[in-house]
Amino acid sequence: MGEHTTLLRSYVGGAWQTADAEGAPLHDAVTGEEVARISSAGIDMAAALEYGRRVGGPALRELTFHQRAALLKALASYLREHRDELYALSARTGATPGDSKFDVDGGIGTLFSYSSKGRRELPNDTVYVDGAVEPLSKGGHFVGQHVATPLRGVAVQINAFNFPVWGPLEKFAPAFVAGVPSLVKPASQTAYVTEKLVELIIGSGLLPEGALQLVCGGAGDLLDHLTEQDLVSFTGSASTAAKLRTHPEIVRQAVRFNAEADSLNCSILGPDATPGTPEFDLYVKQLVTEMTVKAGQKCTAIRRAFVPATLMDDVAAAVRERLARVKVGNPANPDVRMGALASLEQREEVRRSLKALLDVATVVFGDPDHVEVIDADAERGAFISPILLRADDPDRAEPHQVEAFGPVSTLLPYTSAEQVIDLAARGQGSLAGSVVTGDTDFAREVVLGVAPWHGRLLVLNAEDAAESTGHGSPLPALVHGGPGRAGGGEELGGIRAVLHHMQRTAVQASPGVLAAVTGQWVAGAPRQTGVHPFRKSLAELKIGDTVVAGPRTVSQADIDHFAEFTGDTFYAHTDEEAAKANPLFGGIVAHGYLVVSFAAGLFVSPEPGPVLANYGLENLRFLTPVKPGDELTVTLTAKQITPRENADYGEVRWDADVTNSDNASVAKYDVLTLVAKENR
Amino acid sequence: MGEHTTLLRSYVGGAWQTADAEGAPLHDAVTGEEVARISSAGIDMAAALEYGRRVGGPALRELTFHQRAALLKALASYLREHRDELYALSARTGATPGDSKFDVDGGIGTLFSYSSKGRRELPNDTVYVDGAVEPLSKGGHFVGQHVATPLRGVAVQINAFNFPVWGPLEKFAPAFVAGVPSLVKPASQTAYVTEKLVELIIGSGLLPEGALQLVCGGAGDLLDHLTEQDLVSFTGSASTAAKLRTHPEIVRQAVRFNAEADSLNCSILGPDATPGTPEFDLYVKQLVTEMTVKAGQKCTAIRRAFVPATLMDDVAAAVRERLARVKVGNPANPDVRMGALASLEQREEVRRSLKALLDVATVVFGDPDHVEVIDADAERGAFISPILLRADDPDRAEPHQVEAFGPVSTLLPYTSAEQVIDLAARGQGSLAGSVVTGDTDFAREVVLGVAPWHGRLLVLNAEDAAESTGHGSPLPALVHGGPGRAGGGEELGGIRAVLHHMQRTAVQASPGVLAAVTGQWVAGAPRQTGVHPFRKSLAELKIGDTVVAGPRTVSQADIDHFAEFTGDTFYAHTDEEAAKANPLFGGIVAHGYLVVSFAAGLFVSPEPGPVLANYGLENLRFLTPVKPGDELTVTLTAKQITPRENADYGEVRWDADVTNSDNASVAKYDVLTLVAKENR
Repeated sequence: MGEHTTLLRSYVGGAWQTADAEGAPLHDAVTGEEVARISSAGIDMAAALEYGRRVGGPALRELTFHQRAALLKALASYLREHRDELYALSARTGATPGDSKFDVDGGIGTLFSYSSKGRRELPNDTVYVDGAVEPLSKGGHFVGQHVATPLRGVAVQINAFNFPVWGPLEKFAPAFVAGVPSLVKPASQTAYVTEKLVELIIGSGLLPEGALQLVCGGAGDLLDHLTEQDLVSFTGSASTAAKLRTHPEIVRQAVRFNAEADSLNCSILGPDATPGTPEFDLYVKQLVTEMTVKAGQKCTAIRRAFVPATLMDDVAAAVRERLARVKVGNPANPDVRMGALASLEQREEVRRSLKALLDVATVVFGDPDHVEVIDADAERGAFISPILLRADDPDRAEPHQVEAFGPVSTLLPYTSAEQVIDLAARGQGSLAGSVVTGDTDFAREVVLGVAPWHGRLLVLNAEDAAESTGHGSPLPALVHGGPGRAGGGEELGGIRAVLHHMQRTAVQASPGVLAAVTGQWVAGAPRQTGVHPFRKSLAELKIGDTVVAGPRTVSQADIDHFAEFTGDTFYAHTDEEAAKANPLFGGIVAHGYLVVSFAAGLFVSPEPGPVLANYGLENLRFLTPVKPGDELTVTLTAKQITPRENADYGEVRWDADVTNSDNASVAKYDVLTLVAKENR
Repeated sequence: MGEHTTLLRSYVGGAWQTADAEGAPLHDAVTGEEVARISSAGIDMAAALEYGRRVGGPALRELTFHQRAALLKALASYLREHRDELYALSARTGATPGDSKFDVDGGIGTLFSYSSKGRRELPNDTVYVDGAVEPLSKGGHFVGQHVATPLRGVAVQINAFNFPVWGPLEKFAPAFVAGVPSLVKPASQTAYVTEKLVELIIGSGLLPEGALQLVCGGAGDLLDHLTEQDLVSFTGSASTAAKLRTHPEIVRQAVRFNAEADSLNCSILGPDATPGTPEFDLYVKQLVTEMTVKAGQKCTAIRRAFVPATLMDDVAAAVRERLARVKVGNPANPDVRMGALASLEQREEVRRSLKALLDVATVVFGDPDHVEVIDADAERGAFISPILLRADDPDRAEPHQVEAFGPVSTLLPYTSAEQVIDLAARGQGSLAGSVVTGDTDFAREVVLGVAPWHGRLLVLNAEDAAESTGHGSPLPALVHGGPGRAGGGEELGGIRAVLHHMQRTAVQASPGVLAAVTGQWVAGAPRQTGVHPFRKSLAELKIGDTVVAGPRTVSQADIDHFAEFTGDTFYAHTDEEAAKANPLFGGIVAHGYLVVSFAAGLFVSPEPGPVLANYGLENLRFLTPVKPGDELTVTLTAKQITPRENADYGEVRWDADVTNSDNASVAKYDVLTLVAKENR
C-alpha cells in the first residue's frame, strides 16, 4: 500500500495527542488506499476521564440550559459552514453525496434541534424541575417535587462506523445541554471523519474546555476507570453491547449504560395496498431506498419486508425492477446511486450472513459475489450488489435472527394482521418499523400490536408520504432505540435524552425550602408584597413577589350583562330553574370567563411598564362555583422567571388564586407574561 | 426444634402448589421457633412465566388504566380489612406493632395511591400518550408522538426480607396499573408473611387470573426463561444485584432490570442547628428513629450522620441519652420500642460489619455482643443493641463503604458545606439523604450539591417536621432508588413507575392515523361537523366532532366596554399612543380574556344538555394580536373523551382554535368539560 499515512490524533486533557505506536491502517472503502492509521496507545484514559470531570463538568454546569443551547446553535452554524470538509472525507467511507448529507447534515440538524428544544422546553436555569409538586401532608407544610441535576461524570460515547458524524453529534448534543462533558470514541474504520469533526468543533473555540474529548483507537482501560457518575452510550453490535454491559465496573457501580444495537427491522405492507395503489408504490420505493442508502449499513434499515402472501410476486417483481436501475460504484460519479460498504471486512461479514439466510431463502435480485461497478475496482473497493431475498416460509428462524448489515432485505409473506404482528415480534426487539397502508384500522391494529417491540414506528400512506422522513431516519424529537435485540436503550426523543444524563431526585421539604431549591415559587412558600410586581423589571422581580387585589362583588347584573355581551347564554348562567337542576351548580353561577376577566381587572397595573403582554394561561381549574353576590379576591404571585438569552425581555409565570369571601379558591391558574429585563 | 412445620406454598399457573421437598426451616426472629419450611423444588418456572404471559397479560390488557386502578382500590380496601392477619405474622419477623404498620399499612397505602394516581393522571384507555405532538414537517401532514404500551411479558419481582408486605405491593401496584402481570419471589427469611399476603389477594377474587403469581423458595432456573418482554425488579444487596444484572439471559435480551440496593445514606445537620434549636432536636430524634425502626433493617436508614465538628460531642450526648431509653425485646410487650433482627444470620452479618467499622470508629452507645431484652431470650432471638459509632476522621474509607444492616449509625464531623457535600458523595450513590437545618441557603447548597448521588432528599426543619414522613420512608409519589451503590434504579415516583413497565414507541404518521392510534384527536386529523357536539352525550360523541362558529367582529367599542366592565384597563387596550410604543402590539389590541369570552359565546349551546360544566382550560396561547375590527371565528373539536368508571359523566377535552379573517390563529387552547354519559 506504499508509505504510511499519518496517525489520527486524539483530543484529551485539553490537547491533541498522537499515539506512540505505528497504528493500524484504515482504508478508503472505494479505492482500498490507506487513508490514515489509528492507535490509542499511550493515552492515559483515567486522566482523560478525570479531566472531563474536573474541567469540563464544572465549566458546563456554570452555564444555564439556555446558555448551553445557544452555544449548540452557534456550533451547528459553524459546522454547517465547514461541512464540505466533512463531505470530502465522508466519500472515502464509500458514501455517496446523498449518504454524506444524511450523516453530516443529519448530525448538524440534531444540534439545531437540541438547541431549539433546550430553549423552548427547559428553564433558563441549572436545575430542571420534573413534574408537579406532590402534596405529602394535609397541612401543606410538607411537599415533594422531583429535580434533575447533571451527573458529575463523563458521558463516554462509543460510536459505530456507519455514521461518523451523526453518531457522535446525536450523543453529544443532549449530554451538552444536560451539562455533562462527552468523551467520544469512534469506531476505527471511519474515525478519520470523526477526527475531522472534532477538529472543527475544537477549532471553533465555541465550547468550554473539557466539554468534548476524543479518543481515536481502542478504548484500552477506559471503562476500568468509570465511576457511578459516568455514563456509557454505545451504538454497535449486540455482542459488543453484551460485553460492555457486563464490564465489571459498569456492573459494580451501576453505571448508566445505554445500548443501541442493529436489529431486524420490519416493514409491513397492508393488504389494501395492491398494485396500482399509491401505498404499493410507496412500499416498493421505500424498500429500495432503505436497501441502498448507506449501502444498507443502517441499524434502522429494513431487513424483513412483510407483504400479504397474495402480493409476494407483485412486490418481488416491482422491487427487482427498481433495484435493476440502481447503479453501484464510485460515489464521485454522479450516476452512482449506491457506494461501497465501509470496508472489505464488512463485505465478508455480509457474505457470511447471506450464506445463513440462503438456507431458507431464495435470491430475487443480486449476486452476493458479483456486482457491476462504475469508475471503481469491484474487488479493491468494498462493493456489493443489493440483494433481495425471498423466504416463503415465514416461520423459519433465520430471517428473524440473522442480519446481513448491508444492502440486503428478505421478503416474507403473511396472511392476517394477527400473524404479521406475531412475525414482527420474532425480531425480539427492533429500533424501527413501518406499516405502509391506506387502511387506518389496519394501521392502528398493527401499530399497537407491534409497539412493545419497537422504539419507533412509521405509518406511511398517500397523505404523509410527501412529507415523511422515511423508515430509516431517526429524528431528534423522537426516541431512537428499541427493546431486546435493539439494545433496550433510548437516545434522542427530545428533552428525554437530556434527562438521561441527569439524576432525578425527589426533594421533600417545606414549600419555602423547596422553592429555594428549585428557584420556582410553590404554593405555601413565602410571599412578599409591596410595590406592585407588574412595576418590577425582570432584574428587580423575585419569585414570591405578590399582589393581592379585591374584593369585587359579582352581581346578578354582572352575570346577566356578561351573558348578553359575550353571547355565552349557557343555561347555568341565565336560567335559575335549569341551573338548579344541574348536578354541579344548584343555581345560577357566574361564567368562568367572567371570573378570570374580573380577576385580571383586579390585578392589572394599567400604566406602561415592564410587563409587555399576557401571552397565555395554563392549568386553569374552576374549583368552586361563583354565585351572584360572591366577593372575589385575587392573589397573584411570581412563580418562575425566565430571562431570554437573546432578547431584552423574558417570561414570567404567575400563580393566580381567585378566592371567595369564605377564602375558598374559586379558580386557580398560571398567567404567562412577557416582562422587560430593565425598566425603560 | 421439634416436629416439622408446613411448607410455604407457591401460587403459579392458577393454583397453589407445594414443593416436593422437605424444605429449609424458617425461624421466628424472637423465639427461634420454626415458623415454616420453604422450597420451590418442582415448580416449573418456565411454565409460570408463560402462564403470566398467556393468561395474565391478555386479561390485564383488556382493562383500561382506570379499570385496573379501580380493582387496585378494591384490593387495598380488602387488605385493610384483613390486615390483622398480616400483623400477627409480621410480629414473628421481630417487628414491633409500629414496624408492622410501617410495612403492612405502607403497602396498602401504596395500592391506594396508585389507584388514585391511575385515575387522575392516566386516560381511561389502554394506550398512554407520552408528551406532545411533534411536528415533523412544514406541511403538517406528517407528525410524531410517543405512546406507551404494556410490555407483553411478566414483571419478575425479587424482594428483600425486611418488608415482606410493602416490598411486594410497591412493585406489584405499578405493574398492575401498567397492565403487566407480576411474579413475586420473596426473600425466604420472611416469606411466610408474603405467602399470607398473596393468599389474601388471591382469596379476594378481585384480580384477573394470572395477574399475580408467587414463588416461595429459590428462583431455580426462572431467569433462564426470560424474554425481552419480561422485566426484573430486585431489592436486596449490591452483590446479588450484580449477579442478577449479569445473568446471561438478562444481558443477551437486554431485559429491563431494576435494582434497589442498600446504601450508605447520610443525614446532615446544619451548622445553624446548635443545641437548643428545634432542628438540633429534630436531628437527634430522627437519627434514633431511623436506627431503631425495623431494628435499623431499612435500606433507607441513616448510616452516616454528618454533624458540624463543633457539635460532635453535643450530638453524641443527646443521641446516647435517647438511645438509653429505647427498650429492646419481645415486640408483644407494649414497652418494647425495638424488636429483633430478622434472623440470627442477620445478627452475625451485622456483627461482622461492625468489626470493620470499629477499626476506624469508637462506640458512643451500645455493645455489639450484649443487650438487655424484655420478655425474650437475647440469644435465641435475633436481638442486638442499637449501636452509635463515632469516627472523628471522616476521610477514612470504612464509614462510607461498610454497611451494618441493623440499628447502627456512625457520627462523622465536617467543617464546611463544600466538605460535607464531598463526604456525602463518598457513599457512591444513595437511596435517601436528609438535611436538617433552619438555614434555607445551606439547604439549597447541600441539596443541589448532593442531588446527583441521591434518589430522594429530605429537608427537615421546624416548619415541616410535624407533617414530615421522615428520612426513611419511601413514598408512592416520589421516586425510590438511587444511583451507583444504591443500584442505579428507580421505583415508585407516581406514574413514572407505571411507565417503567411499558414500552415507549415514537409513532410517525399522518395526523388522522396518529389520532386513530392514540384515540386522541390531533390538529390536522379529520373533523366531523353536523349536530352541535355539545348536544351529544359521551356515548354519542366521537373525537373529531366539531363545531365552527362565528364570525363575530371585535369592535373598538367592545374593547372599551370590556376594559370598563372588568376593570382591565391595561394601556394596550385603552391608550392608542402607549399601545403603539409596545414592541409587540403596535396599537390597541383586544384583551385576551375578551377573545376567549367571545369565543365561548360563539361555541356555546345554551339549552340544558349533556354538557354539564366547563371546569377548566389549558395551554392557552395568544398567538396574534386582535385589533379593533377583526372578525373572530372559533373551531371547537372533541379531542379526548374520558368516561369515568364510577360516575354517570366523564371529561371531554376540546381543541379550541380562534382565527381571524386572515385565517391566522389568534388563540389556541384546550377547553375542559364534564359531559353526561347519556342524554337525559
